[in-house]
Amino acid sequence: MAIRVTVWHEYRHEKKNPKVAEIYPQGMHEAIASYLRKCEGLTVRTATQDEPEHGLSEEVVNNTDVMIWWGHIAHREVNEAVVDRLYTRVLAGMGLVVLHSGHFSKIFQKLMGTSCNLKWRDTGERETLWVTRPGHPIVKDIDDHFVIEREEMYPEFFDIPEPECTFLISTFAGGEVFRSGCTWTRGLGKIAYFRPGHETFPTYHDPRVLKVIENATRWAQPTPGPGPLDFGKHDLGWVDKK
Amino acid sequence: MAIRVTVWHEYRHEKKNPKVAEIYPQGMHEAIASYLRKCEGLTVRTATQDEPEHGLSEEVVNNTDVMIWWGHIAHREVNEAVVDRLYTRVLAGMGLVVLHSGHFSKIFQKLMGTSCNLKWRDTGERETLWVTRPGHPIVKDIDDHFVIEREEMYPEFFDIPEPECTFLISTFAGGEVFRSGCTWTRGLGKIAYFRPGHETFPTYHDPRVLKVIENATRWAQPTPGPGPLDFGKHDLGWVDKK
Amino acid sequence: MAIRVTVWHEYRHEKKNPKVAEIYPQGMHEAIASYLRKCEGLTVRTATQDEPEHGLSEEVVNNTDVMIWWGHIAHREVNEAVVDRLYTRVLAGMGLVVLHSGHFSKIFQKLMGTSCNLKWRDTGERETLWVTRPGHPIVKDIDDHFVIEREEMYPEFFDIPEPECTFLISTFAGGEVFRSGCTWTRGLGKIAYFRPGHETFPTYHDPRVLKVIENATRWAQPTPGPGPLDFGKHDLGWVDKK
Amino acid sequence: MAIRVTVWHEYRHEKKNPKVAEIYPQGMHEAIASYLRKCEGLTVRTATQDEPEHGLSEEVVNNTDVMIWWGHIAHREVNEAVVDRLYTRVLAGMGLVVLHSGHFSKIFQKLMGTSCNLKWRDTGERETLWVTRPGHPIVKDIDDHFVIEREEMYPEFFDIPEPECTFLISTFAGGEVFRSGCTWTRGLGKIAYFRPGHETFPTYHDPRVLKVIENATRWAQPTPGPGPLDFGKHDLGWVDKK
Repeated sequence: MAIRVTVWHEYRHEKKNPKVAEIYPQGMHEAIASYLRKCEGLTVRTATQDEPEHGLSEEVVNNTDVMIWWGHIAHREVNEAVVDRLYTRVLAGMGLVVLHSGHFSKIFQKLMGTSCNLKWRDTGERETLWVTRPGHPIVKDIDDHFVIEREEMYPEFFDIPEPECTFLISTFAGGEVFRSGCTWTRGLGKIAYFRPGHETFPTYHDPRVLKVIENATRWAQPTPGPGPLDFGKHDLGWVDKK
Repeated sequence: MAIRVTVWHEYRHEKKNPKVAEIYPQGMHEAIASYLRKCEGLTVRTATQDEPEHGLSEEVVNNTDVMIWWGHIAHREVNEAVVDRLYTRVLAGMGLVVLHSGHFSKIFQKLMGTSCNLKWRDTGERETLWVTRPGHPIVKDIDDHFVIEREEMYPEFFDIPEPECTFLISTFAGGEVFRSGCTWTRGLGKIAYFRPGHETFPTYHDPRVLKVIENATRWAQPTPGPGPLDFGKHDLGWVDKK
Repeated sequence: MAIRVTVWHEYRHEKKNPKVAEIYPQGMHEAIASYLRKCEGLTVRTATQDEPEHGLSEEVVNNTDVMIWWGHIAHREVNEAVVDRLYTRVLAGMGLVVLHSGHFSKIFQKLMGTSCNLKWRDTGERETLWVTRPGHPIVKDIDDHFVIEREEMYPEFFDIPEPECTFLISTFAGGEVFRSGCTWTRGLGKIAYFRPGHETFPTYHDPRVLKVIENATRWAQPTPGPGPLDFGKHDLGWVDKK
Repeated sequence: MAIRVTVWHEYRHEKKNPKVAEIYPQGMHEAIASYLRKCEGLTVRTATQDEPEHGLSEEVVNNTDVMIWWGHIAHREVNEAVVDRLYTRVLAGMGLVVLHSGHFSKIFQKLMGTSCNLKWRDTGERETLWVTRPGHPIVKDIDDHFVIEREEMYPEFFDIPEPECTFLISTFAGGEVFRSGCTWTRGLGKIAYFRPGHETFPTYHDPRVLKVIENATRWAQPTPGPGPLDFGKHDLGWVDKK
């Protein structure tokens, strides 16, 4: 059974900044989605912020197994009802792969329980990503490290809960470090954060970056099962239920 | 330097239910606070929901090192601005000790990133709490297990993130289990959840329960340090800053 | 590509105790292996302690993706060279599923870094296992809890490192609790511990128990990849290597 | 009550290499111990590998609350009986602070359950250490990062179990990263690893490095309590014991 993937994108930079539009003529979401469409066992759609309900109707969300998320300048404009819909769906098992500046999205903050804040420097410098959990499915087919020649820099401290697994750590030409690949579980849902992807660099054309996104998507897929959890008054002890 | 503790209590059951008032004539918060006041190195105040700003003005919150929290029937009435104040303060280092039905409080949900939901059965049954991390400061002076003769029952699944440490697990007469003592870190703040304390039982007169609360308070105190974190644009690499 | 599974068994009780032989005429390993052989995508062999090299030649170990382990009265007789072989192979990615009294095996102790000790009571009492991480692949198709009518009892404290995930917690008729389903990572290898399976009870004929073992086997399989890690002197910085 | 600290050192390089002897005329252990002796609430002794029983008699080990460990070229010469003594004592609550090349010591490997292997480059390059868990007691009074001008380089992958907390991550002039400050719990004992300290550089004269070692020592002290754990046959259910 195919994994149903929705690549969600804010899709504002491309419309305003010719430099970004040149790198991503169809938008960053299409760069990612067109790669994923070629991967076996994935069914891929896209959704963007300026569509009705941000393209995330109940129907779309309820039929998404893994959501990929990129946002930046319009986080505050994302509707609370949609955030709640995503949140409920993650707790019920939907995987979530948060990219780059998506660290400051409402949905990621709400799931982490922290500010998810950080510092940054946008001069386009070399980023080297080191694998710190070889054997993890998210770094399948990735060498012990890889270099992205030009990226925005994020340094620690990154205000996230201690990750369940840190699979990549970056360093930058300026001498900073950052936990660039991290995982958590919330309810039945698996969440991965993956750092690279500033809009003014061709990061989502990089085959290693795309491979990590593909791997994260496969890793985050829900375990098939009985559906949402049951809470509430629990009248009977186990003796009576059997 | 003394740890500045605020014991926060919803304080509604005692006013409506004579059975609760009989057990806690001054309220559950006073049962806990009067114990803590006798402990060395703690400065203790209380605050309750029906005070202005729930007794949690900026001045009170900013001068609290560890907050103890009990709420139940009025979670939804807690003001969002106060929740945000507490949240910001926990991320800046304030400890938080959440008791019993406080699992469903806005502040705990916001810090956990999950529903914190569970089931329950309120028939007053035997609870046995087993220590699963001996040597942890929160179970100092606690035997390998202890029994509370009558308590409300909470069974798993408890929808929390995987704890950083699970220090107590309960079982109940009906045959259920529950992760009754758990810790997490959020920002600079330490958070503990401790299960017992239904309002119709004299749990907060139990010396073992009070001891765990005291221990959790000491464990959750902030590390003295430079204060709130600095985020934002980060112009210079380390070379330039030194 | 099929997962290559080796079910390893001490296989002593069956030969000495007619009661055990009656429950497991071909040995506990065969009860487990015959179930797994019917599962899609698994290639299953068995190995037992009294075979040469305990049935764990280099050839067998190097061609095993997931090892299932049951031992009890002869842990001390397991050859150190074989333990080292298993250890090296786990760090290189082989999954390990440790069952019941296997908690005290040399290989589990060596991988955990703790005594893995516990207490026990062998009166054949009711065990109830509660799912504490719904959505985890190891509890796929398992209800929120299940009951085994007669089992040996293990109570906390179980001297293990804090699990990366605790997916099952048991309670017993006598009122004890135990972390019955836990996972860890060591090197590239995934490790699961699953408690039930005392030799004098028909636990490995129980379809829920067998399902958890099957699920754990699938979960523990290695990520296909480049093979053993490379350590040693590292002469060149990244600049020179690219 | 003072924390009883033993600073253990291999103490071989200083005797063979004049360059090391010049930096540490009394040995690295004395550089660390003389700092710690000035810290309030610590009672400090030293022990070295070439003393009888490596200076770690039962009497010494049983009266040590926190052990600090530096070894490098003679790991394989450390007596197994002494390793077992340390191991048992850590599980019973003794703290352990492992420094630099101590990563490859028998005691650290035995407690971690992994190879603890890594790569290295010894050209004396700039190391920058970034705080990734501000508010943790081990980084008390440490700025958001600090630079050591000349150190040996260790790059990831470092073969350790996922840390319970990663409090420092380093980057090096050559563009590598390393998890330089990590914690784990084993039994009742707390363990910290702290990376810097190659013998040919004056790292243990650096006040930030010494501060981290002091903080780690305080953090790793045992919780006062009832002593070693009790395991074995457990005849009675809780009902009978009360």
